[in-house]
Amino acid sequence: MSLTNASPSDAAKAAKEASHVLATLSEDARNDALTAIHAGLAAARDEILAANARDLEVARSAAAHGQLSPSLVSRLDLGKKGKWEDMLKGILDVRDLEDPVGKITLRTKLDDGLELTRVTCPIGVLLIIFEARPEVIANIASLAVKSGNSAILKGGKESTESFVAISKVISAALDQTKVPNGAIQLVTTRDVIPQLLDLDQYIDLVIPRGSNELVRYIKSNTKIPVLGHADGLCSIFLEQSADAKMAADVIVDSKTSYPAACNSLETLLVQESALSTILPQVAAALIEKDVVLRCDPKTKASLFNKLPPNLVEKLEDAQEVDFDTEFLSLTLAIKAVADVHEAISHINTHGSKHTDVILTSSDELAEQFMSSIDAAGVYWNASTRFADGMRYGFGTEVGISTNKIHSRGPVGLEGLMIYKYKIRGQGHTTAAYGEGEGKKSYKHEKLPL
Amino acid sequence: MSLTNASPSDAAKAAKEASHVLATLSEDARNDALTAIHAGLAAARDEILAANARDLEVARSAAAHGQLSPSLVSRLDLGKKGKWEDMLKGILDVRDLEDPVGKITLRTKLDDGLELTRVTCPIGVLLIIFEARPEVIANIASLAVKSGNSAILKGGKESTESFVAISKVISAALDQTKVPNGAIQLVTTRDVIPQLLDLDQYIDLVIPRGSNELVRYIKSNTKIPVLGHADGLCSIFLEQSADAKMAADVIVDSKTSYPAACNSLETLLVQESALSTILPQVAAALIEKDVVLRCDPKTKASLFNKLPPNLVEKLEDAQEVDFDTEFLSLTLAIKAVADVHEAISHINTHGSKHTDVILTSSDELAEQFMSSIDAAGVYWNASTRFADGMRYGFGTEVGISTNKIHSRGPVGLEGLMIYKYKIRGQGHTTAAYGEGEGKKSYKHEKLPL
Repeated sequence: MSLTNASPSDAAKAAKEASHVLATLSEDARNDALTAIHAGLAAARDEILAANARDLEVARSAAAHGQLSPSLVSRLDLGKKGKWEDMLKGILDVRDLEDPVGKITLRTKLDDGLELTRVTCPIGVLLIIFEARPEVIANIASLAVKSGNSAILKGGKESTESFVAISKVISAALDQTKVPNGAIQLVTTRDVIPQLLDLDQYIDLVIPRGSNELVRYIKSNTKIPVLGHADGLCSIFLEQSADAKMAADVIVDSKTSYPAACNSLETLLVQESALSTILPQVAAALIEKDVVLRCDPKTKASLFNKLPPNLVEKLEDAQEVDFDTEFLSLTLAIKAVADVHEAISHINTHGSKHTDVILTSSDELAEQFMSSIDAAGVYWNASTRFADGMRYGFGTEVGISTNKIHSRGPVGLEGLMIYKYKIRGQGHTTAAYGEGEGKKSYKHEKLPL
Repeated sequence: MSLTNASPSDAAKAAKEASHVLATLSEDARNDALTAIHAGLAAARDEILAANARDLEVARSAAAHGQLSPSLVSRLDLGKKGKWEDMLKGILDVRDLEDPVGKITLRTKLDDGLELTRVTCPIGVLLIIFEARPEVIANIASLAVKSGNSAILKGGKESTESFVAISKVISAALDQTKVPNGAIQLVTTRDVIPQLLDLDQYIDLVIPRGSNELVRYIKSNTKIPVLGHADGLCSIFLEQSADAKMAADVIVDSKTSYPAACNSLETLLVQESALSTILPQVAAALIEKDVVLRCDPKTKASLFNKLPPNLVEKLEDAQEVDFDTEFLSLTLAIKAVADVHEAISHINTHGSKHTDVILTSSDELAEQFMSSIDAAGVYWNASTRFADGMRYGFGTEVGISTNKIHSRGPVGLEGLMIYKYKIRGQGHTTAAYGEGEGKKSYKHEKLPL
């Protein structure tokens, strides 16, 4: 474990070398390291919170001068009720998850005495880039150690003091364990992100934890695979057979329970035949929760006739761009569509492949929607906000991926794994197999796992 | 199915739209399309071979003038014994593989009436770029249809006539099926590879089928994930306890059964204590097969004392660069190492993460080697050349991946799949769950698949 001003290239090289050792450690050795990190942080509570207070002071002053958003200041605060305890508990939660390393996922008898197995193993070196939220350091270090991956951590400048304080503790804790020096690299020098993103010979996966802008920048500036999502433009299709009360509940939860989250609702598509039957009740419920409705002409005309004037006056006109916008606030774009086909086509064109929902009482339409929509999550009669690793029962999540390969949706420990094929033979050669005189054939018998 | 001079961007957009339909087709509909492709090609044998003969004539003339390698001409020839029949049989083999679409890989009861499932689905749009080998078109079109992916096929200019002829037949065959027009896009215009590699909004995965140079060029020039490998630098570590006869057999097979293949042996590491006991027999067997041995000083000195003069005079001196070289010919680099640790360290530094082997009679050392080497394939007492989709029992392969994410080693149909999460609820909202008065808890019960 290093907390250095080493060059990004040296840090990445050291992380790669350490990853080869880390990959061979037993489950106990990795779990012991998490126990040590937990104990170290628990003992250093006061000095870490003091360091965090210094970050906060600088940040609050910057916010007062309009140089930093108040929400960033809030994310920085480790002293907020429950945050410290959650951070510590998270380490033990990760420790107690099922070991993801060394799982056998395929076994085939190729021939007598020649067996093929596929075994899960760590990916190698992760680069995690995050902005505020200093508690992410402990979370990610835990996930990396548990999964047998090295990690290079690059924090944002606003959390430097907290980052250094937590890092020193983690570093000292790991020194007492079998996790090799170098497995967790903490880069505190500034302006090194472009250099890090260029190190594809050492770094196997980048995980950005921060704003859409950060993710978009990273995706556009590296050849290393990036696990995450820049946009979360989630849609709900309200079909004519949906129960009105259920629809209002789900749509209000999807939009209002945490509007800044990536799994919040941004576009509501309403079947034309439901405009006057279901939409009014849904719209009233949303307006009551202070949601601003940006309506296309058809939905607006319909609501104009059905809502009382004091609600009608709150409706806004949608522009085309609203249907490609992740508002991350209490604004919702609403559009009428003829049927499930138009809804599917709209979402596959304008969506971000994150999470999309159909509200309907038709089993058939629900299945059609779920098989046709190209997204990580496709739900029937449930809130978009279920898209979350904790809610899925994964114990923790690294992020939510809208990638089309490797790992999709909420990514838990499994997303930090790959596999290798092992063959155990007795001197077998390939030239012995084939067609013709004296040649052998493969048996290809599936064996139990 | 389009055989057009459409712009790359239009072709990719059409492929993406078609992929949304293709992803919803039943197994029967996809299999019927493969039956139709097979029948169409069988009926059009003569005209396709005539087109191929025209390609061959041009290629042979270019080869005679030194503008084309003879091996490329050979790969171009569809009339070579068994090639046409293999191509046709390959289509039916793919058709008869287990359906990779719609497999349920996780089921969790989140709460009463709220169920999460993870279901395999196609990735979306594949871009396949290949050089000679016109039979790859039929192979890849089959794999794409079977896996529910759209494919954009870009062939090399040497096989243009064959490509167009096969394409027309596939196109006409698919027109009679449920596979949507546009699902297989055949790009025959030249010099469009840079444009295609830029279309990451439509294309989800690039699969290059060709030379190391082609793969390296593609990997360096796109943000789209690339499935494949540029280098195949496979190593064998010959440990002191290995049986000498077994070692000679495996090493000769690894090196000589197909030297131009990516899974052939390029570097032999010999434990110092085995230099005078096992290496001489291995070296003699290799030299008998015309393998040129490039030896480091220690291995050369040892062989100098043990081999007869007529064999010694064939030994060459290895340069440092030889241990980073994929010879793809009958040249082998040989180096002495102290023990398994030095072998592991050498391979993890110089190897290409493709396939590496330990020859030993020690169970313990074998397991240590296999867990420590960072490669897609790690074998004990078996030839490197087992690294192959057919030999692994996958039925077919798209290529061999040295990537660290998604799919590694020989990639079959499974490598062309991703998954989506489906939730089926009854109006469930997230705000109902949590700590405190009246809040519900998640059940997170694993359900049988």
